Amino acid sequence: MTRKISFGIMLQGAGGHMNAWRHPKSPVDASVNLDFFRTAALKAEAAGIAFAFVADGLYINEKSIPHFLNRFEPLTILAALATVTSRIGLAGTVSTSYSDPFTIARQFASLDLISGGRCGWNAVTTPLEGTAKNYSRNHPEHALRYEIADEYLEVVKGLWDSWDDDAFTRDRESGQFFDREKLHTLGHKGRFFQVEGPLNIQRSPQGQPVIFQAGSSDAGIGLAGKHADAVFTNGVSLEGNQTFSRRVKQSAVAQGRSADDVKIFPGVGPIVGRTQAEAEEKYQVIRNLISIDEALAYLGRFFDQHDFSAYDLDAPFPDLGDIGRNSFRSTTDRIKQVAKEQGQTLREAALAAATPREGFVGTPDAVASKLIEWFENGAADGFILGFPVIAEGLDDFTRLVLPILEERGYFDPQLKAGTLRENLGLPYRQSVYAGVDGETEKARA
Amino acid sequence: MTRKISFGIMLQGAGGHMNAWRHPKSPVDASVNLDFFRTAALKAEAAGIAFAFVADGLYINEKSIPHFLNRFEPLTILAALATVTSRIGLAGTVSTSYSDPFTIARQFASLDLISGGRCGWNAVTTPLEGTAKNYSRNHPEHALRYEIADEYLEVVKGLWDSWDDDAFTRDRESGQFFDREKLHTLGHKGRFFQVEGPLNIQRSPQGQPVIFQAGSSDAGIGLAGKHADAVFTNGVSLEGNQTFSRRVKQSAVAQGRSADDVKIFPGVGPIVGRTQAEAEEKYQVIRNLISIDEALAYLGRFFDQHDFSAYDLDAPFPDLGDIGRNSFRSTTDRIKQVAKEQGQTLREAALAAATPREGFVGTPDAVASKLIEWFENGAADGFILGFPVIAEGLDDFTRLVLPILEERGYFDPQLKAGTLRENLGLPYRQSVYAGVDGETEKARA
Ligand SMILES: Cc1cc2nc3c(=O)[nH]c(=O)nc-3n(C[C@H](O)[C@H](O)[C@H](O)COP(=O)(O)O)c2cc1C
Ligand SMILES: Cc1cc2nc3c(=O)[nH]c(=O)nc-3n(C[C@H](O)[C@H](O)[C@H](O)COP(=O)(O)O)c2cc1C
Repeated sequence: MTRKISFGIMLQGAGGHMNAWRHPKSPVDASVNLDFFRTAALKAEAAGIAFAFVADGLYINEKSIPHFLNRFEPLTILAALATVTSRIGLAGTVSTSYSDPFTIARQFASLDLISGGRCGWNAVTTPLEGTAKNYSRNHPEHALRYEIADEYLEVVKGLWDSWDDDAFTRDRESGQFFDREKLHTLGHKGRFFQVEGPLNIQRSPQGQPVIFQAGSSDAGIGLAGKHADAVFTNGVSLEGNQTFSRRVKQSAVAQGRSADDVKIFPGVGPIVGRTQAEAEEKYQVIRNLISIDEALAYLGRFFDQHDFSAYDLDAPFPDLGDIGRNSFRSTTDRIKQVAKEQGQTLREAALAAATPREGFVGTPDAVASKLIEWFENGAADGFILGFPVIAEGLDDFTRLVLPILEERGYFDPQLKAGTLRENLGLPYRQSVYAGVDGETEKARA
Repeated sequence: MTRKISFGIMLQGAGGHMNAWRHPKSPVDASVNLDFFRTAALKAEAAGIAFAFVADGLYINEKSIPHFLNRFEPLTILAALATVTSRIGLAGTVSTSYSDPFTIARQFASLDLISGGRCGWNAVTTPLEGTAKNYSRNHPEHALRYEIADEYLEVVKGLWDSWDDDAFTRDRESGQFFDREKLHTLGHKGRFFQVEGPLNIQRSPQGQPVIFQAGSSDAGIGLAGKHADAVFTNGVSLEGNQTFSRRVKQSAVAQGRSADDVKIFPGVGPIVGRTQAEAEEKYQVIRNLISIDEALAYLGRFFDQHDFSAYDLDAPFPDLGDIGRNSFRSTTDRIKQVAKEQGQTLREAALAAATPREGFVGTPDAVASKLIEWFENGAADGFILGFPVIAEGLDDFTRLVLPILEERGYFDPQLKAGTLRENLGLPYRQSVYAGVDGETEKARA
């Protein structure tokens, strides 16, 4: 049996495009519309898409893009979806810079139990400096954020092992509720966190929730290699993503893990038409949802809210020095590099950022072939589908592209009735205490 | 039309009794059993119980009572219930001493939107000192906790008014997503919190989530009078609860609010039998779920994990001085006082604390009459039903007691398909900006 491609679907507002809400097929209030989320999750589940993915942010101002202004909070919307879905995974973003590890360990463990082991956490360090203003503190700089994240993940994973799999004996007769030998108090005393434990919830059906990581700088790659089960990264190009994937897997190996222990998910936003012309037409409709001013503002978001409106639109992309490096570093580095390589004007760079295409605009066959090409050449283990307009893209993709992938043996449209780890080909996460003194001997396939 | 009694139901593990899990009717894993929660919530909803209420705690050790050791986290379980229920309110506990107001404002606002305006927040200050050890900080003392809580609630309510009711215009044609005049940036700079805002989610269908408060000391009453829509308090006695209710309402009036703006919900745990003897039998079954050692440990929990095992069980309740005053103050003060008044031994006090009865053990008629007596005499606007064993108590109560209350005109078994505020007789919560410059003119019944 060939390896299969796994997919996730980004659920953010009406879609990944900043003005997706204006698309004729979208409900204008998609970002806070429960039925829209539920329908998309159920469609994705029926099609065999392995997980829904909810991104997040903790700071807005009046210049933020529409679906960031008014959106569901990830843990609550994922828990709400848990009881109306049955097989699809449920992954969401929570920042390690602006939350408490005890609370977050608990909320994801609870979601994991509620969903029967279907949950994942996208642990991010938070690029937006303004966030600090909502949290009564200062914004730690890039390197420090990653040092905090490393210790944070240590703590959370430690808390998740508070109870052995078989710790809760619950014997009505004797009154023994749990076995004291199977309770582990963390006693973490670190540089940033002191967390005693134990966590007040049992281990999950998949051992531990799946950890996604989404930073792509060197520090991000280091963190992913050490802690992540999966990495969400920008889909940029076959070569770019090959290099990235290799580096993450090398980082995992350097940590004593296997290259297979961390799955790479580039984000792509396919726009599919029965012909190339139809696909281009759909692209243009989406492209026209935005004005050049909006595209500039969108670009500015990545660069610490940098104001691009004073620059000459048709001159070469400006030299920005270090602007953006303390925020979305990997993204801003790439934008600068592509602009230079391709000799883009500011207008071109802004429009490309606002309505990216990365080669996934085309016929079902072309898009399927491109996905296979990335998959076969080590650029991806799967993809996170960030449809520019979900109401259009999801149906097109499931009806037109997935059947081709299935036919070619790259896709299994039937999700297992099991955990997210099982559906991603990740093993059950054993406790660090497993096997110690033969205490926990649960073995899973 | 007479005023009606509202009810909430506590969902914590198999029930309020510490060993409810051992009762023959309970699933032993009730505290983490989604089906148990779902079934209870649906039964309660069908019976006209206005809300489910999830208590919480953030610190355990091996001496904690069973359903605290392994439990769902409130926000996730409530969100999970939101999509499988349609009318019942969903209230949960989150501490103001161990969380961030921006995050909590957001999570409750999100839950409120997901549930169609059915959510409530029980804002507590966290009595358990050990909690600090899970949160890398020191435990603030009683008075300070309430000062923090006051500012915290200020911030959350401020954030909830970030957007006017009609701020999101979402006009596809013009591309206007929101009206800038209807966006309010909080800019809070206080003693404990600096929170810029705005919140990244719209106002809720009920204006703001219902705020419950559960501290009963003077400081707790002050906080409730200022901020709460509802108070959860121990059901102790007609006189005790009359006094308490009067004091909370006076506190509200002193803050320029109406006595009706804050509803008082004593917690009671009815045990109903068709005859008094049958009720007593049920009480004994529950009483026998516990050993005297467990009862002592249970009592110790309220008193900062005080170890009662060295005392003489049959001597008068010991003089504890100030022990317990920095923790569950109102509860420990009451236990001390009752022990003194009734000349209880330590054994009697411990058993009474572990299996309280407060006069709600009896025939349907007796229990209904008692509830009416409290309601008619200003001791309660409603009750939070903390059934010692949910699997037994909920059915007994809905089948035997509620019909009597309905017949006597005190209960409406049909919940409105509306918000929790509507079901509790609380008005829609207007924004502080409502009416200013005629900006928001939404008027609701
Ligand atoms: C594909 C991708 C998705 C991301 N998703 C989020 C997100 O949902 N929320 C967030 O706050 N940051 C998100 N980030 C930001 C990163 O977590 C990180 O803070 C930022 O990219 C800077 O780190 P880096 O330089 O290592 O990439 C994302 C980044 C990437 C590349
Ligand atoms: C009826 C009642 C219910 C409570 N529920 C909770 C709870 O779920 N979680 C929690 O941490 N504290 C809870 N508390 C504790 C209070 O919030 C408060 O911290 C404690 O009672 C001390 O404050 P006080 O002296 O004002 O009562 C509860 C208290 C009472 C009286």
